[in-house]
Amino acid sequence: MLIDGTHYRAIWMGEDPGIVKVIDQRLLPFEFRILELKSMTDAYEAIAGMVVRGAPLIGATAAFGLYLAAFKSDPQNWCNEVKTAAEKLLSARPTAVNLRYALDLLMEKVVCAGSRESIIKELFHLSIRFAENEVIRCKKIGEYGVELIREISKNSSRPVRILTHCNAGWLACIDYGTALAPIYLAHDQGIAVHVWVDETRPRNQGARLTAYELGQHGVPHTVIVDNAGGHLMQQGEVDLVLVGSDRTTRTGDVANKIGTYLKALAAKDNGVPFYVALPSTTIDFELGDGRQIEIENRDAEEVTHMEGLSEKTQGINTIRILPTSSPVVNPGFDVTPARLVDGLITERGICEASEAGIKSLFDK
Amino acid sequence: MLIDGTHYRAIWMGEDPGIVKVIDQRLLPFEFRILELKSMTDAYEAIAGMVVRGAPLIGATAAFGLYLAAFKSDPQNWCNEVKTAAEKLLSARPTAVNLRYALDLLMEKVVCAGSRESIIKELFHLSIRFAENEVIRCKKIGEYGVELIREISKNSSRPVRILTHCNAGWLACIDYGTALAPIYLAHDQGIAVHVWVDETRPRNQGARLTAYELGQHGVPHTVIVDNAGGHLMQQGEVDLVLVGSDRTTRTGDVANKIGTYLKALAAKDNGVPFYVALPSTTIDFELGDGRQIEIENRDAEEVTHMEGLSEKTQGINTIRILPTSSPVVNPGFDVTPARLVDGLITERGICEASEAGIKSLFDK
Repeated sequence: MLIDGTHYRAIWMGEDPGIVKVIDQRLLPFEFRILELKSMTDAYEAIAGMVVRGAPLIGATAAFGLYLAAFKSDPQNWCNEVKTAAEKLLSARPTAVNLRYALDLLMEKVVCAGSRESIIKELFHLSIRFAENEVIRCKKIGEYGVELIREISKNSSRPVRILTHCNAGWLACIDYGTALAPIYLAHDQGIAVHVWVDETRPRNQGARLTAYELGQHGVPHTVIVDNAGGHLMQQGEVDLVLVGSDRTTRTGDVANKIGTYLKALAAKDNGVPFYVALPSTTIDFELGDGRQIEIENRDAEEVTHMEGLSEKTQGINTIRILPTSSPVVNPGFDVTPARLVDGLITERGICEASEAGIKSLFDK
Repeated sequence: MLIDGTHYRAIWMGEDPGIVKVIDQRLLPFEFRILELKSMTDAYEAIAGMVVRGAPLIGATAAFGLYLAAFKSDPQNWCNEVKTAAEKLLSARPTAVNLRYALDLLMEKVVCAGSRESIIKELFHLSIRFAENEVIRCKKIGEYGVELIREISKNSSRPVRILTHCNAGWLACIDYGTALAPIYLAHDQGIAVHVWVDETRPRNQGARLTAYELGQHGVPHTVIVDNAGGHLMQQGEVDLVLVGSDRTTRTGDVANKIGTYLKALAAKDNGVPFYVALPSTTIDFELGDGRQIEIENRDAEEVTHMEGLSEKTQGINTIRILPTSSPVVNPGFDVTPARLVDGLITERGICEASEAGIKSLFDK
C-alpha cells in the first residue's frame, strides 16, 4: 500500500542477497525508517523487539531469517547452524502460530545430506514465495470480506461504520492486511466506510499504525480509546467489528490482541456482527480449545512507559506514566470464544467459527 | 487517608476563610501539590479542568465554590452573583449529578431577602457539612462493602482479588472513597486483598491515582491496561469487580467512567460478582433509564497526548501519541445496564440494582 504516494510492502529482499529490508514499525507514525536485516539474529531481534509485528509478517520475517542463517552460515557447519536458527527464531514470540508454520515449511527442505548452496537457493525462493502467498491470501480475504461491507452499505445511507482493534493492516501482513483488507477494498471500490480505530494499549498499534495506514490511504477513520467501543455500540454507532487473529483453534476460538474479547462481548450484547479475518496460516489445527493457547506475558515497561513525539523537543521521547512503586502485569493476547464470533473471513471464503465451519473450507 | 504518613483529605478549608484547599490531582503521582481556591472561578476551573474529579469531590468543590462566590461577592449585588455562580458551577461538568445535588442543597438557603452575612455563614457551614457527610457516607459504604470481601475471603486461602476501574478512591471522595472504601477497610482489618487496577484511558486515573492511593496506604495491587481485565476474569484471577458511579438511575443503571460497561460484560460472562459502590447523592431519582444520561464528550487532546515523567528531564512532559492527521472522539462515560450489576453498595446497605432494590433503602 501507499506511504507518501510510494508503494511499499512491510518486508522485501534488498538488491544484495544478504540483506532483507523491513519498515521499523516501532518508530511509526512519528518517523519512517527502513531497517536492514543482515543475519538470523537481526531477524530474531526484529521479531522479538517488535520492529515487525502481526502474525503474517512475523512468519515471513522468520522465513527470511532462516534464509539469512543459511546464507551466512559456516560451510563446515551450515546444517547445524540452520537447525539452531530455526529453534531460535521459533522462540522469538510464543503466541503467533505463523512462526512455526513458516519455519516448518522451510525446514522440510533442509536436508543435511544436500548441498549448502542448493539449500540456500531453496530457502531464498521459499521465503519469497511464503511472503507472496501471504499477500495473495490477504487479497482474497479482502475480496470475500468486502461483500459483508457491501451488504451492510445497501441498507444504509451512511458510511458503513467498522470498529477494529490493534493493527491487522498491511503493516502486519506484508500487503493489504487481514481485517483491513476488506476495508481497503471497500474504500477503493467506492463504498463509503468509516473506521473506529481502537487505540490498543499497551503498545498503541491502533493509534500508531492502523490510524497511520488508513490516513496514508485516505480511509476516513476516528481513533478512540479501548474503553470507548462498548459505548459506541450501545449508541448504535458501529455496524460491524472486524479484527485479525494471531492464532485460531480448529474449533474457531480466536487468540488476538488483548482486549479483543471485550469487544466481542459488547458486539454480542448489542447485536453487532463480529468477524475475524485470518489467513489459514494462523489456524492451529492441533488445538481444539482456545484455553490451551499459550498467552505471552510481555514486559511491564510497555505499560509503565509511553513513547511519543515530545512537544518540547519534537523528537521521540519516552515518559513514565505510573507511580514507580506499582507492579504491572501485561498479557499480550486474549482468547475470544467461538460462540462470540459471527464468522471467519479466510482466503477461501467466509465460514462459521466452528470445527464444521473451518472444515467446510479447509478439510485436512 | 495517608500520603507519606500524613493524613489528608481531598478538599478542606484553609485557615483564611477566603481560601479552600485541594490537592492538584492533575500532577499526581509525579508531584504532590496543594492548590488554593480563592474564588468561584477557581472552583469552576478546578472542576472543569479536573484538578479535582470524582462525583463526590466535584459536589463538595461546587459547594465550597458557591460559598466563595458569596464570600467574595459585591455587597450591592451579592444575591445575583451567587445565583449566577450556581449556574456557572453547574455547567462545569455535565454528567455528575452531585454537582446539581450540592448546588440545589445550598441554593435552598439563598434567600435574596436575607442578609449577605448570614447567607455567607450559612453556606460556609453547609459546604463543610456537605463534605463531612460525604466522608460519613463513604465510611458507611466501606463498612457494608467490606462484608462482601470478608465473605469471599472465608472460602479462599488466597488474597481476595478485586478489579477496579478508574479512581473511586479517597482522592475522588474527600476521604475513604466509594469503590475503594471496602478495600481500605478490608486491608485495615487484616483481610488479605489484591487489587487489579485498570489503567483507565484516556486520563489514566487508575494508573495515576488509584495505584498511587493504594501504594501510599500499603494495599497490594497490580496495574493492568484496560484491555486485560476480561482475560484475567477468563483465567479465574478476579473474585470481585468493584467500581464507583458518576450517576445511577433510580432503576439501577450506572453511568461510570468509559469502559466500565465492558468490564461488567466480562464479569457477567465469567460469573464474577460486579458491584457498584455509590453514595446516594449520585442516584438520580428523576431518571428511569440509563440511556437518558447525558454523556460528556471530552477534549481530543486527552486521547492524542499523554502526560508523564520524562526519563530525560525528570520533569513532567507531554507527548503526542497519534498521527497528527487522525481525528478522535472521546466520550467520558458509559452506562452499565442494571442487568449486569449484582448489587449497589450504598451508605444505607447493599441492594439490588433495580427500582425495587433502591426503593428498599431510599424510599422517597
